[in-house]
Amino acid sequence: MSQSRRNESIPEATVPRLSQYLRKLQQLQARGAETVSSRQLADAVGTNPAQIRKDLSYFGEFGTRGVGYDVNLLVGELRKQLGLDRSWNVIIIGSGKLGTALALYRGFEKQGFNLVGMFDTDERVIGRDRGAGPVLSIDELESFIEANDVHIAIITTPAEAAQPLIDRVVAAGVPSVLNFAPIRASAGEPVILRQVDLSTELMTLSFYLDKD
Amino acid sequence: MSQSRRNESIPEATVPRLSQYLRKLQQLQARGAETVSSRQLADAVGTNPAQIRKDLSYFGEFGTRGVGYDVNLLVGELRKQLGLDRSWNVIIIGSGKLGTALALYRGFEKQGFNLVGMFDTDERVIGRDRGAGPVLSIDELESFIEANDVHIAIITTPAEAAQPLIDRVVAAGVPSVLNFAPIRASAGEPVILRQVDLSTELMTLSFYLDKD
Repeated sequence: MSQSRRNESIPEATVPRLSQYLRKLQQLQARGAETVSSRQLADAVGTNPAQIRKDLSYFGEFGTRGVGYDVNLLVGELRKQLGLDRSWNVIIIGSGKLGTALALYRGFEKQGFNLVGMFDTDERVIGRDRGAGPVLSIDELESFIEANDVHIAIITTPAEAAQPLIDRVVAAGVPSVLNFAPIRASAGEPVILRQVDLSTELMTLSFYLDKD
Repeated sequence: MSQSRRNESIPEATVPRLSQYLRKLQQLQARGAETVSSRQLADAVGTNPAQIRKDLSYFGEFGTRGVGYDVNLLVGELRKQLGLDRSWNVIIIGSGKLGTALALYRGFEKQGFNLVGMFDTDERVIGRDRGAGPVLSIDELESFIEANDVHIAIITTPAEAAQPLIDRVVAAGVPSVLNFAPIRASAGEPVILRQVDLSTELMTLSFYLDKD
């Protein structure tokens, strides 16, 4: 996992944790909780209170000693920092099983991510609904991006197709890419590129497994 | 992304990079390259030479100043460190689109990860082949784990089913879990738990996107 651009002073490794804090805080908020201690939050996300305090210190003072953090204030600030106080348009390229699984998982829509289009090269699936309305031909990619304000492209194609398609969406002006294809993809600055790679995940597990 | 157990002295954030270095080095090896500089390797994985030198310094001296790293030696050491000099048995729980997509992506078999079973609760898919031989009933989970040496369980179920199933595989003795369900899962020490979460990935992109 990596991404190629940073801004702000918040370290790269902190950012994914912010989304985990937000999820937990939104659960607490739904239950009517008004404050949460760094200990409670740390336990909920599997870290320690010092990490919580450090991560949250990057954007101001939300805690009161002995009382904890104000849940509503912190939810608002995290949503703002994570760009969730507005909506983002997402396309999925590749309407195979993985692309369809991602399209059908609509949990992210609650947070402001709108799936606006899905693309494939396969004539047999173009026009069918794979969870995001009719699948469009890859030939329409550039014109669709030009006509719609696409913020994020998710790549779920086979390995060999991925990099040329990333090059195309970047050339068409999409500012960020989430790549699931099993390649080490690249995109020039200032494009934001993140990768999810099953092999890397499995190897990280096997690194820690007992080798006896 | 996180995992709950560490051993060795190698930092947690370094481990996923090791698998990326290995992929690149194996490509170089296939092309007959005998040495690689930290600059070449850094460019290939999107980091800097100082990071490469630091990451590789954790397990000895593989570089010669002015010559670079010995590709074959480094591939061997990375495979050993990542536990790829042996094989690991993997099960997938959940035979929906995501589970099937993962089962059909066999790239990881080359690295020694063997998909030995797939489980579901849905009577309509039990017995069918979703990429890993006949799907087994979740009722057979514990007896299967007892009869087979299962090292890694991949969870691709809906959110509400995930934690109880993680508890079951852990109780049955599986030492590591890769969770794709959109929950913040937990597993006690010394179980190794990693999570892939689409919402977290999207929020990490939107954090870096221009908010104008």
